[in-house]
Amino acid sequence: MTPSEPVLPDEQLASYRASIDNIDAALVHLLAERFKITQAVGHHKAAIGLPPSDPAREQDQIARLRSLAVEAGLDPAFTETFLRFIVDEVIRHHQLIAEQPSP
Amino acid sequence: MTPSEPVLPDEQLASYRASIDNIDAALVHLLAERFKITQAVGHHKAAIGLPPSDPAREQDQIARLRSLAVEAGLDPAFTETFLRFIVDEVIRHHQLIAEQPSP
Repeated sequence: MTPSEPVLPDEQLASYRASIDNIDAALVHLLAERFKITQAVGHHKAAIGLPPSDPAREQDQIARLRSLAVEAGLDPAFTETFLRFIVDEVIRHHQLIAEQPSP
Repeated sequence: MTPSEPVLPDEQLASYRASIDNIDAALVHLLAERFKITQAVGHHKAAIGLPPSDPAREQDQIARLRSLAVEAGLDPAFTETFLRFIVDEVIRHHQLIAEQPSP
């Protein structure tokens, strides 16, 4: 590029970013739906006296998602860390629900 | 429940978990697609000499996703932490790409 050429907007980068923004909107909406369900799970567990976390269930989830990740071309170690990140937030919610005084 | 009643499988919990598993499969596939795009961004940035991270872009993403989260009923603070978690992994990938010797 010579100094006299105008700097063009980076259309390639803008196109990539538009796709990332679409995917992120989908991720946010899926996460919102997932937390709606886990809130219901939290109330259900509190009602019947189950503990907030379930290590055996979490091991099953990790194994399944690692396998799905490999099929989808996603790093399975990252996927496990991702699930841990979500589940930690869920357990925090379940603990808050379990600590609420009964009506 | 009297001692003579059999312990029934928890169908309500199983139903919630089946929905969570479906959502998690969708999340894994969306994340795989998102990383395919950010890998392309990484190569594009390395080719034209842009740095791996772009704080102004990240601020725009945070503001947009916090707003989407509120509409969707998701905790905006959690959403920001979630985006940070994903973007940190992306920047790590971009740094690896930028450090690769040119062919």
